[in-house]
Amino acid sequence: MPDLETNLPSVRNIQNFIQQKNEVELKLVTDDLIVGQILWQDTYCICIVDHYQQTTIVWRQSIVFMKPKA
Amino acid sequence: MPDLETNLPSVRNIQNFIQQKNEVELKLVTDDLIVGQILWQDTYCICIVDHYQQTTIVWRQSIVFMKPKA
Amino acid sequence: MPDLETNLPSVRNIQNFIQQKNEVELKLVTDDLIVGQILWQDTYCICIVDHYQQTTIVWRQSIVFMKPKA
Amino acid sequence: MPDLETNLPSVRNIQNFIQQKNEVELKLVTDDLIVGQILWQDTYCICIVDHYQQTTIVWRQSIVFMKPKA
Amino acid sequence: MPDLETNLPSVRNIQNFIQQKNEVELKLVTDDLIVGQILWQDTYCICIVDHYQQTTIVWRQSIVFMKPKA
Amino acid sequence: MPDLETNLPSVRNIQNFIQQKNEVELKLVTDDLIVGQILWQDTYCICIVDHYQQTTIVWRQSIVFMKPKA
Repeated sequence: MPDLETNLPSVRNIQNFIQQKNEVELKLVTDDLIVGQILWQDTYCICIVDHYQQTTIVWRQSIVFMKPKA
Repeated sequence: MPDLETNLPSVRNIQNFIQQKNEVELKLVTDDLIVGQILWQDTYCICIVDHYQQTTIVWRQSIVFMKPKA
Repeated sequence: MPDLETNLPSVRNIQNFIQQKNEVELKLVTDDLIVGQILWQDTYCICIVDHYQQTTIVWRQSIVFMKPKA
Repeated sequence: MPDLETNLPSVRNIQNFIQQKNEVELKLVTDDLIVGQILWQDTYCICIVDHYQQTTIVWRQSIVFMKPKA
Repeated sequence: MPDLETNLPSVRNIQNFIQQKNEVELKLVTDDLIVGQILWQDTYCICIVDHYQQTTIVWRQSIVFMKPKA
Repeated sequence: MPDLETNLPSVRNIQNFIQQKNEVELKLVTDDLIVGQILWQDTYCICIVDHYQQTTIVWRQSIVFMKPKA
């Protein structure tokens, strides 16, 4: 898999969520729902930190959808 | 993954749905059903906005099928 | 993903189903069963139209098997 | 995806099952079990015909395991 | 997919299990558990033989984890 | 698949967990939860050892998320 193509809308949207510390909701293939702020993204993963300061490294391959919270 | 091949029927169909603001139904691997208008597509994702102005970034890898609504 | 390799049996079979307007049954990873005629195929998707003229764009990644109906 | 590498054990085994008309059992991600003889394989699919002469084109991506029957 | 990279720990571990006729437990995406000795591995598959001499060709794409038995 | 890109945050984080013998929790697509220390990672797999010295070779393709334990 090549580098993250930072000019793609999906990658840029996530980059914006990181900078603006937006809260997002991540739905995963196991039906798990991860809620928190995105710390970083790379080619394989997206890292989320929740209200309790627990970090979760989510594999992109398991992501179904992401909803920015209003 | 290379750029979206915009001459493919599937990519062009989605491009038309975007331009004509067609409502579509997206069935996902988790059995979730997302209904709304498509805002944009890129290599990894398709972004949907629903009647309540909630945007959802859907990962292509999780899409099972898409039905344009009549 | 490269262009569809039109010399492969699987791609040619589907091409024949399209030309002969064969009815097929598509089993998907969600256990959904889509029945209808194939309108087109490309690298990412196969498009089905059913008896009620509803079109469904099915992502290849979600296909488990296809049965031509007798 | 490149051509099928015909020197690989898995590809050669299937080629042998085809020539010897071995009956095989295919377990799929949906938990479906397809039983029959293999007619052909290509890069994307494996085609099975059962006792009732029904052919099923199985997508390789959905295969969990294959058991040759004794 | 390229050739199996035989210098990788995962590939080498499996190679050792083959040579030492270790018994392993394979957990698959369907929650099936296959127990036996590994006969061979290639780019797509791993072949297991169980106590009853039944061989099972397991697709790598369906493997969740492998546990060597003590 | 190319070599592991060791400059990526996700790969470096795992490398740190290995060196610091951090305990991690791995959630898999089958909903299995594997808890233990990471012994090694390569392009295809991550190897975990638990409190009972049982090693488990986890396929990356089956990982949903990883949580470092506090």
